[in-house]
This record gives sequence, structure tokens and C-alpha cells, in this order.
Amino acid sequence: MRNLLLYLEYDGTNYHGWQIQPEDITVQKTVEDAVFKIFKEKISVTGCSRTDAGVHAKKYALSFFTECKIPAERVAVALNTALPYDVRALYCTEVGENFHARFDTVSKTYQYIINNGKYDVFMRNYCWTVKSALDIEKMRSSAKYFLGKHDFKSFMTGEKDVTVRNVFSLDITENGDFINIFISADGFLYNMVRIIVGTLKKIGEGKLDGEKIPEIILARDRSLAGETAPPQGLYLYDVKYEVSEILK
Amino acid sequence: MRNLLLYLEYDGTNYHGWQIQPEDITVQKTVEDAVFKIFKEKISVTGCSRTDAGVHAKKYALSFFTECKIPAERVAVALNTALPYDVRALYCTEVGENFHARFDTVSKTYQYIINNGKYDVFMRNYCWTVKSALDIEKMRSSAKYFLGKHDFKSFMTGEKDVTVRNVFSLDITENGDFINIFISADGFLYNMVRIIVGTLKKIGEGKLDGEKIPEIILARDRSLAGETAPPQGLYLYDVKYEVSEILK
Repeated sequence: MRNLLLYLEYDGTNYHGWQIQPEDITVQKTVEDAVFKIFKEKISVTGCSRTDAGVHAKKYALSFFTECKIPAERVAVALNTALPYDVRALYCTEVGENFHARFDTVSKTYQYIINNGKYDVFMRNYCWTVKSALDIEKMRSSAKYFLGKHDFKSFMTGEKDVTVRNVFSLDITENGDFINIFISADGFLYNMVRIIVGTLKKIGEGKLDGEKIPEIILARDRSLAGETAPPQGLYLYDVKYEVSEILK
Repeated sequence: MRNLLLYLEYDGTNYHGWQIQPEDITVQKTVEDAVFKIFKEKISVTGCSRTDAGVHAKKYALSFFTECKIPAERVAVALNTALPYDVRALYCTEVGENFHARFDTVSKTYQYIINNGKYDVFMRNYCWTVKSALDIEKMRSSAKYFLGKHDFKSFMTGEKDVTVRNVFSLDITENGDFINIFISADGFLYNMVRIIVGTLKKIGEGKLDGEKIPEIILARDRSLAGETAPPQGLYLYDVKYEVSEILK
């Protein structure tokens, strides 16, 4: 029995998120079907996170146990023959039996794309079109307040016991009318990236003073933060593990 | 009764082309449904060309007669409230009663996008991924042979009486791994752009000598040209009319 770590890229437009659901097509089910087709094994794969419907991944990590003897470096190519064109296996490596794709992450990075220009039919599933002119310098200068270990209860949907997360970086870049927001952390609460993006948008519009962020964090009150940005602008961009955990 | 000229942008991924078909969803039907919803008129719109399934348009022109009194400059905004998100009305202007969106074109420009890099799930419906390395200079230096008035029978699918077309320009630009091919002409034969692109690809791969193009044109033999490039890389990019025909 081997434990394989596989990286994927996927367009989430036509999926009801990652996690298997009874009625809907999900990325997890799609991958498990492909594994069954290629390896002839009914297995359950463990994903690094639950992405929502419409959310994309440029690098998603999952792992699964298999009896199959295909060398790890050939697994991605084999699976791509059975995967649909909106899900691609990138590469695969063998890991130790204790490796867990979700619990062993040391950092995750999300990208969020805002189109601050004209609505573009070709990008409609891949960004959030914001009509109001955004002041990127205002957004950038508030980014520092999100960095470090904070209780992000104001920036989440639902309930959770532990709401402290460590944000490593928050960078904002421009590419023509498109604004890219990259956020890295040790982990994210439900909707955390999308609420931070909605809050940055409000700051960029001049409707919220960026200096208020420390206060909003301390308040632990969702109603003080900005709106939840829509799913289609969100991409899981990178997932990192300790090398020692990856090596067998 | 007014005659309105309307420009559209659309993502052709989910449509069976422009023209109405009994069973399938087409862009024409979608526009006529929106016109019915907004103007309460059952009308038939005249498009500037029949695009195939999966082909896109950055600027598509159509015209229709209407009794409605909405000022032309407000028509696009009104129709967008009834159109799906993959079809957008760009702008509208009133034209003379003799104006015909198809027969009165003086030039059309198509764009074709080749991805000559890694397969990209997010671009899968918007370009042709070509794995073999393309020599763009070879492609560029053969472009001149397509210019001017020629019988393009070697570069079409099907039959047609008049197969002479006047190609005004053929430009190839690069944008990272993406190659953009822009072709303008007074009109195009069925699959003409896609077969020219397939032929340019063969030249770029070094499998066809670009100096052979004049010979291939003269032969009037489809089998001598390259393959038909797939539809999803093709965009109707511009449609031009004589200003005198547009003005009432």
C-alpha cells in the first residue's frame, strides 16, 4: 500500500465545490471516478481543503492510498486520460503513510481576481467585476493590519471554536484593469478570503477607513467587515507541506 | 418602424452557433427572446455572419426592425437586463431602412488565439493548445501570400459558386505563450479562417514550406492546406460598414 500526493488544477465553474455530495457533481467525485477508471480501485481521496461551488484551484493537493504499482511520476499523465478537460492532474509523488493532505499543510495561498474595468463575457466565471473605481493604494496600505496572528471571527461565516489564524502575507498587484490579491496563511476560516476581499473593496471605494481594521478584528463581529466577495474570483493558488512530512 | 443596428459580445461556449436551429440554443434565439422580453415584439434579427458552435464574438453586428420607441442609445442597457451573462449588448444605433447587417459589411476581422504553452484549464474554451513549438517568424513571413484578391477554394469547407475573397491584412502577434492571428477581409468562406490558421500552424511546425502557399491557392484543392483549427480559438473581432450606409 502506497500513499500518493497528487496536485491538481481545476476550473470550478461546473462543479459544486470539492467535497462529495449526494446529488451534485463535485471535483472529489470526479477525481475518485478517474482513479477507479485507471487504477480499478474504489478509493476515497483526502483533499487539502473544501472549496466552494465556483471556486477554482491552480494548485490543489490531495492524497490517497493505493495498491497500484504505476510509478508516481506517471500517475498524473495516466489520470489525465480519464479526467475531464476542466480538471488536470499536475504531478504526483509518493509520501509517508502518516501524511495527511489536510492536517499537514503549513501554508495555503489564495489568489482573488477583481476586474475593475468593463464587464468581460470571457472572464465572467473567473473574476469579480467591480464597477466603482478602487483606490489600490488605500487597499495596499490597509493590508498590513491583517498580517500576523489574529482572531479572525469578524472575517468568517458560521461558527468555529478556534478562530485564530496566522496570515503570512497579503499582496496586491495590478495587471491592466485586473487587481490580484494574494493571501497566505497557516489556514483559513470559512469564507475568510472572500470577506477580507469584500472588506478591501470597501476600503478601495473609500466607504471604509482602512485604519479601522484593527478595531474590526478586535470586535469579533462579522457585521463590521465588508461583503463576502463572490466565489468565481477565488483561486486556491498554492499549498505547502513540510518537506520532512512529504518524504517517506 | 425603425431599423436598429446592435453590436454584441458573446462567449460561444454554451451555444450552437449564431443561427436559429430547431433543437439547440443559439445566440440568435437568445437575442430574439431578450428583444421579445424588453420590446414585447416577436421579431427576427439579421446577423452579420453565421458563427459555428463554440466560436466567440468580441464584436458581432445584427439589425432588426422595431416599432418600439426606446431611444437607440438606451437599447443596449435595456437588453442586457434580459440577456444571459455570456451575451452582452455593447451599443446600438439607428440605421436606414435599407441597411442589411450581412450584405452591407465592407470588412470583417477575425482573431484566432493559439496557446503554444502548457494546457491551461481556464483557457480551454478560449484558445487552441498546440504542443509542438511554433516558429512564429516562419508563420509571419508566409502571411503576405494570403493578402489580396485570391480564389480561396483550397481554404474552405463545402461548395460555393464564388470563392474569391479579398484579404486586407493578416497579422500575427505574441503575448507570452499565446499567439494571436488577426485576419481582415471583405468576407470569408466557410471555415476559411480556421483552415488558414491550421495551415499557418503547419508552417510554424516546419511541416509545410511557407513558400508553397501561392501554389496551394492556385491548386484550388482543400487537401493541400492544413487542418481546420478547432472553433474555440476563433473570435469575430470586428465588423465594418460604410458610414453612409449606417446613417439614415
